[in-house]
Amino acid sequence: MRRFVRHRRIRFADCDPAGIVFFPHYLTMFVSLLEDFVCEELGLSYAELIGARRIGLPTVSLACEFTHPSRLGDEISLGLGVARIGRSSIALALDCSDAARTRVAIRQTIVVTSLDTHRPISVPPDLRAALEAFDPALRSVAEDAR
Amino acid sequence: MRRFVRHRRIRFADCDPAGIVFFPHYLTMFVSLLEDFVCEELGLSYAELIGARRIGLPTVSLACEFTHPSRLGDEISLGLGVARIGRSSIALALDCSDAARTRVAIRQTIVVTSLDTHRPISVPPDLRAALEAFDPALRSVAEDAR
Amino acid sequence: MRRFVRHRRIRFADCDPAGIVFFPHYLTMFVSLLEDFVCEELGLSYAELIGARRIGLPTVSLACEFTHPSRLGDEISLGLGVARIGRSSIALALDCSDAARTRVAIRQTIVVTSLDTHRPISVPPDLRAALEAFDPALRSVAEDAR
Amino acid sequence: MRRFVRHRRIRFADCDPAGIVFFPHYLTMFVSLLEDFVCEELGLSYAELIGARRIGLPTVSLACEFTHPSRLGDEISLGLGVARIGRSSIALALDCSDAARTRVAIRQTIVVTSLDTHRPISVPPDLRAALEAFDPALRSVAEDAR
Repeated sequence: MRRFVRHRRIRFADCDPAGIVFFPHYLTMFVSLLEDFVCEELGLSYAELIGARRIGLPTVSLACEFTHPSRLGDEISLGLGVARIGRSSIALALDCSDAARTRVAIRQTIVVTSLDTHRPISVPPDLRAALEAFDPALRSVAEDAR
Repeated sequence: MRRFVRHRRIRFADCDPAGIVFFPHYLTMFVSLLEDFVCEELGLSYAELIGARRIGLPTVSLACEFTHPSRLGDEISLGLGVARIGRSSIALALDCSDAARTRVAIRQTIVVTSLDTHRPISVPPDLRAALEAFDPALRSVAEDAR
Repeated sequence: MRRFVRHRRIRFADCDPAGIVFFPHYLTMFVSLLEDFVCEELGLSYAELIGARRIGLPTVSLACEFTHPSRLGDEISLGLGVARIGRSSIALALDCSDAARTRVAIRQTIVVTSLDTHRPISVPPDLRAALEAFDPALRSVAEDAR
Repeated sequence: MRRFVRHRRIRFADCDPAGIVFFPHYLTMFVSLLEDFVCEELGLSYAELIGARRIGLPTVSLACEFTHPSRLGDEISLGLGVARIGRSSIALALDCSDAARTRVAIRQTIVVTSLDTHRPISVPPDLRAALEAFDPALRSVAEDAR
């Protein structure tokens, strides 16, 4: 599975009184990673998606394993792969890792919705094509799903 | 399963540009619900746990289903039940619901750790006893786990 | 000046690795205090204001003094008074206090805007009337400002 | 005044239901900008400062002017200058700007404290020297303050 990766230092604002990343902040980091992936890798405008096109990408399910804590100052990488594209859903495989191991592994399913109705709609053709171009291994699954 | 419940209005600060709860904020709400449960229901001091006793309660796994969005102004309830107590882990069943349905259902496993080593330790006797007193159905499982 | 007050315990999610309230979180607490004031004291719907009526209340200026830190578990009160109502602006006097002293004092000016243009509009008559009813000492200033 | 500048796109997680930056998030951005300044420009370890050295940098006063909103997708720059170094306090001049204008201007005073006592201590010599090396115009003021 091809991965989109960003490197980052764990900052003061990410951490809790126990001195490690406050776990909901990991999820915020991954929301922003997805947005960076859409803008910087797929070349689509997230602002236009949400704004002019009125398309939302809410999360419908999430499974996370936190195996190793991250501390203030740690240098980590955040990775995103696309595990599956369905008619209106997209399954993501996310991780936070250091050089030696995976610290957090997440399987997240988002669904494409209309922001007017908050109901699922088909993955827009430009988004589907960009996802398939990013990871050609996805193509056959997407064809099945249509 | 006995439940600890708090009622709450969805506020502006909870919501995203799509006009619904920004999903990482649900996780923050449940972190605070657990803290309120420990303080207000179990009668233990969370501040003392983290501070003087140097005990942490990090999350090791999380499985969430988001089935219905929450909008600004919605009146919801947040519920917490204790599904299982192991030697050092506690499994929680969490939900966000309105009068008609469950909007978010979460199964979260936290582990009791030493904040000095970030390694698991046994559930402290006072916390175990308070959890068992809260929900007597838990007792036998806890005995198995010891 | 009449005050709207809410009591609250400082929670884990409010605090930083230094063990005290992460100061941007105070601002979030006061955003929510203003919302509770509008809903619970003035009897207006904040959700309807932002949603159907397309009225925003952005902050245009802020002056804060942080004189004493708040720690996890501290019981504090958050207070809000209305210092002045202008044509489209409202000046608030906010504080976080314990029994003995003020910990944070804030003077914040918000402006009523159209969410379509993000330009200032007049304070809506129902909001102005409700603010004047909350604190009759405000009336003459508001009359000057019209 | 010499400035440390970082460029950034306004992300979904930064914005509120009114579609603009939720203003407390600006303050979080500037907390992280200060941390990046300390690590990347001054060459000191923020993690070591907070951790091993038990030195805190809490905010004691803050004055902000928000003159123009930032929307999802906007490309902005965040700037930091050091306005003054006293015995234990540091005054920062912060701004969020686009190519055409300043959107947010902040004057923030932080104080160096011991995390054991939460009382002010002298600015550590290595931090003072690094600040003076960053902006030589600061030197005379700092000498006055000693």
